[in-house]
Amino acid sequence: MSYAGPVKSMHYLLRHAVDIDALLEQPAHEEVSHELISDVLSGAAAFAGDVLAPINWDGDQNPAQIKDGNVTASPGFKQAYHAFVESGWQSLPVPAAQGGMGLPSVIGVATNEMFYAANMAFGLCPMLTSSAAKAIAAHASPDLKDKYLSKMITGEWSGAMCLTEPQAGSDLGPVRTKAVDNDDGTYAITGQKIYITWGDHDCADNIIHLVLARLPDSPEGSRGISLFLCPKFLVNDDGLIGRRNAFKPIGLEHKLGIHASPTCVMEFDRAAGWLVGDVNRGLACMFTMMNEARLFVGVQGVAIGDRAFQAALAYANDRVQGKVPGGQENDPIIGHPDVRRMLIDMKTRLMSARAINMATAMAGDLAVCADDVMAKLHHAREALLTPIAKAYSTDIGVEIASVGVQIHGGMGFVEETGAAQHYRDARIAPIYEGTNGIQAMDLIGRKIRRDGGEAIKALITELGAIDEICQKAVDKGAEFEAARGALATGLSVLTEAVEIILKADEMDALSSAAPFLKLAGDVISGAYLIKAAANGTLSGDDGAAEMKALADYHALAILPQAGAQINFMRSAAKIVFGFPALQLTDL
Amino acid sequence: MSYAGPVKSMHYLLRHAVDIDALLEQPAHEEVSHELISDVLSGAAAFAGDVLAPINWDGDQNPAQIKDGNVTASPGFKQAYHAFVESGWQSLPVPAAQGGMGLPSVIGVATNEMFYAANMAFGLCPMLTSSAAKAIAAHASPDLKDKYLSKMITGEWSGAMCLTEPQAGSDLGPVRTKAVDNDDGTYAITGQKIYITWGDHDCADNIIHLVLARLPDSPEGSRGISLFLCPKFLVNDDGLIGRRNAFKPIGLEHKLGIHASPTCVMEFDRAAGWLVGDVNRGLACMFTMMNEARLFVGVQGVAIGDRAFQAALAYANDRVQGKVPGGQENDPIIGHPDVRRMLIDMKTRLMSARAINMATAMAGDLAVCADDVMAKLHHAREALLTPIAKAYSTDIGVEIASVGVQIHGGMGFVEETGAAQHYRDARIAPIYEGTNGIQAMDLIGRKIRRDGGEAIKALITELGAIDEICQKAVDKGAEFEAARGALATGLSVLTEAVEIILKADEMDALSSAAPFLKLAGDVISGAYLIKAAANGTLSGDDGAAEMKALADYHALAILPQAGAQINFMRSAAKIVFGFPALQLTDL
Repeated sequence: MSYAGPVKSMHYLLRHAVDIDALLEQPAHEEVSHELISDVLSGAAAFAGDVLAPINWDGDQNPAQIKDGNVTASPGFKQAYHAFVESGWQSLPVPAAQGGMGLPSVIGVATNEMFYAANMAFGLCPMLTSSAAKAIAAHASPDLKDKYLSKMITGEWSGAMCLTEPQAGSDLGPVRTKAVDNDDGTYAITGQKIYITWGDHDCADNIIHLVLARLPDSPEGSRGISLFLCPKFLVNDDGLIGRRNAFKPIGLEHKLGIHASPTCVMEFDRAAGWLVGDVNRGLACMFTMMNEARLFVGVQGVAIGDRAFQAALAYANDRVQGKVPGGQENDPIIGHPDVRRMLIDMKTRLMSARAINMATAMAGDLAVCADDVMAKLHHAREALLTPIAKAYSTDIGVEIASVGVQIHGGMGFVEETGAAQHYRDARIAPIYEGTNGIQAMDLIGRKIRRDGGEAIKALITELGAIDEICQKAVDKGAEFEAARGALATGLSVLTEAVEIILKADEMDALSSAAPFLKLAGDVISGAYLIKAAANGTLSGDDGAAEMKALADYHALAILPQAGAQINFMRSAAKIVFGFPALQLTDL
Repeated sequence: MSYAGPVKSMHYLLRHAVDIDALLEQPAHEEVSHELISDVLSGAAAFAGDVLAPINWDGDQNPAQIKDGNVTASPGFKQAYHAFVESGWQSLPVPAAQGGMGLPSVIGVATNEMFYAANMAFGLCPMLTSSAAKAIAAHASPDLKDKYLSKMITGEWSGAMCLTEPQAGSDLGPVRTKAVDNDDGTYAITGQKIYITWGDHDCADNIIHLVLARLPDSPEGSRGISLFLCPKFLVNDDGLIGRRNAFKPIGLEHKLGIHASPTCVMEFDRAAGWLVGDVNRGLACMFTMMNEARLFVGVQGVAIGDRAFQAALAYANDRVQGKVPGGQENDPIIGHPDVRRMLIDMKTRLMSARAINMATAMAGDLAVCADDVMAKLHHAREALLTPIAKAYSTDIGVEIASVGVQIHGGMGFVEETGAAQHYRDARIAPIYEGTNGIQAMDLIGRKIRRDGGEAIKALITELGAIDEICQKAVDKGAEFEAARGALATGLSVLTEAVEIILKADEMDALSSAAPFLKLAGDVISGAYLIKAAANGTLSGDDGAAEMKALADYHALAILPQAGAQINFMRSAAKIVFGFPALQLTDL
């Protein structure tokens, strides 16, 4: 159950699919070289493979435990976490001004994909720490920042997000947890929160919770929710850790997967909290970091898919069963065309979804460091691509983990093989940080209809220019016929679909949202792969021929799926609501 | 976690999708009336819902246990099994001449779907008993039949199939278990078998194992394997149970799902066995019952999908979260268009895959009771549809169980909710009884290329005539425009795909096999659903409007997917093998 970070693939995509050189030309990143990127990717791959991967299966079989209000992490996790912090991985993509290493977040996408792939349950702790730190950096008072931020940026203290309650999940409006002003700069927080990832554990010295709660005189619904910082241990003015705060985990969920990630029920009993941002603006503060968290869940989708792929590939290269057509006695099953087809399909989907994730992060990086015009374009691009990165990649993660079990045959259904763990772990990613249905609604509503399709049309135009890169490669003797044809058809289907979404009434648009997201993902992911193949061919990159083979597979087997939903989208609500709800159980 | 058998849907499909009246006109079934069918379906639904469903979750959480060579079934399973046998469900589709109730096997498909849905792990025991009994009825000597068959037909004694060994799974050629002739009419069987479903348990008084083994002078490979009957307890000539035979379970697999189904490692140590069929013809004897077993695994795919669907539907009708567009405060999430879309998609896929399963069983029923010409046609039809029923339905089962988790949101990932069990249980069905990849190879090889496409072309012609039924419905004022258009396009795509498969070289055909099976499943399932809608409309059936809504959804959202793989199929091997295997790990 080893894991090898796909360093070459990642560096290839950075160069040829998402033009990292354009980012490296920006003053903010002028010290970042390709040598540095190589070193960082190789270092992350080594850490993932050597430290995190070996404890992944143990963590699954030995979930975190709770006793007397304290959670103990799975065996080996505490040591691995300390090694993670000491190696500086937490601070890698944090701006230098905040004490981080200041690498672009697209590099963080690559390193974190490797950490998630090696050990998804582990990776959630740094992810939540990063999100919480970002919210504090953006909205907390200077005093709070001074007290908490530097230790969260290194990861010495971890972070947790306390949002969900039984009646308030996808919709946080009904949050009931109470905050009472103590008139001494602190608030007393009382209530119960559920699904709190890494809500308690013994890996870090302190855990900084961001808690959504409602003040007594605040309005009902989402406009009456404020955000509070509640440290597990209070922190004295000298920065030393003091007494334990008045909240604790009272239970752990018994989950399908990510067993080593403690999912806590947290009880707050007049816990000391400090306001972050303005009163009643808690949800807005949370949304600040939503883009990042959603993208990183998308990265998890690709990560767990790649782990499942690597396991299936190793098995297919080892297992002998049945005579391979045209092969020798005892040739392994990778020679069977259908096994090989499954592997190519997995590889292509992973590579193309990875390209979407990287493109999303790149847009975010350019949005903060390019000139104003470019910044605006890339800010909109990041917002547009984020729900696609999250939903498309996590659906792919589940599908690929399922195929991974399939390639193992009967062995895949036996837990000890490990393939089943990936199938179980993968299933959470389409759900948390906003279900994929919510991503689809976000995509068609806030990201397409709100700006009249401006951002997506700009992207389609840009992707259309990939044909010119293909032409240049053809001029040099390369063959891009199938890829160009599929890309042109795909972009035309996407354009048509955007028009349908823009003109649809609300119910049609909402009923079409998820099929539209899938369609957009199929087209955009294919476009980036074809771009990567053509750019690599032009610059004579080592991996160009392989990337071209994946692009061709995409062009012939994945991109053509985009057209299938167009007729459905034209009258989606009528079709979806055409069957009476009352009869859904039987006829 | 209740389950309600879809009695109305099933009876509707029997009437309008698979023309059960044509079967009931046959002399063999002239005593079967629609009233009887109704009673049987309702009885099975009651048994499934009242007896089997309530112990499903307990069985998952309390797997079968092994101690000192004896397996104890999960809590409540022994009592449920006795009730199952006493109610006569095991013998329902067994010919009257063998002591069964003689109902058509298409009715057995319906009843067993309900049993599998209620409790998939439980249902495997009767399934294997039925398969083993069929093999004995077809190939064993009169003495063996006399001794074992009647108690297996009632289910008092269960059956098990001992085929797989670590090096011999999909390909049984390398089987190493030895059989030595004792020269007294018995053989001494020695070796180890793995993945033996319900290989030992305490529910039945005896367990009759069919074991593949090799005689010392038999040739290597699949032509040297013979089939032996090994009872757990030897049976005296007076029919009473004697001493225990020399084989036992030595371990249980720790599986992803179907925890209550004991998957045994069986050790045979000079166990007494009796030859079934001719020496070295063991695989041929096993293939006798392969069609049935494969179909019934397909039925499991629909079953577990329906269970997951019912759970998701109940949750969607109960859970309140977010304001439903156009709805009232506190309307449940079923009013959200994307939730509703997922439910309609699940319902449509289930209904249409169920129709394929029923059509497969109907063909098998007609193959044994119609006149010679019809029998030949239907025998080929059954053979053609079986791999589609198995693979298409089980892939759908996995996909639907995954959507079932999704609809539950975070709750779906918590094991206690039950949705996760269906996702885990469903995953075995695409693997056992021949992986879905093997089904696809069987479909394109033995079922299409071997007869030059005769069977599938006959089916396409028959499905083409559905347009005439639609025309009649249109003549009566119904609207079938989208459905007719999608059906015509789908059948034309399928025809084109068949031609590609017929003309392809071996590697292209094998590389296209799985996409072709999916394409064929999408088209054929849609055709049966449209047929059901049109026939029901013509005869004024209660459920016709609902079936029409599902047929329209299929026509707009599922059938159009069939065209997406055609270009891939044209040069499949080139695409699949275009990426060098050595570089699959990275670039």
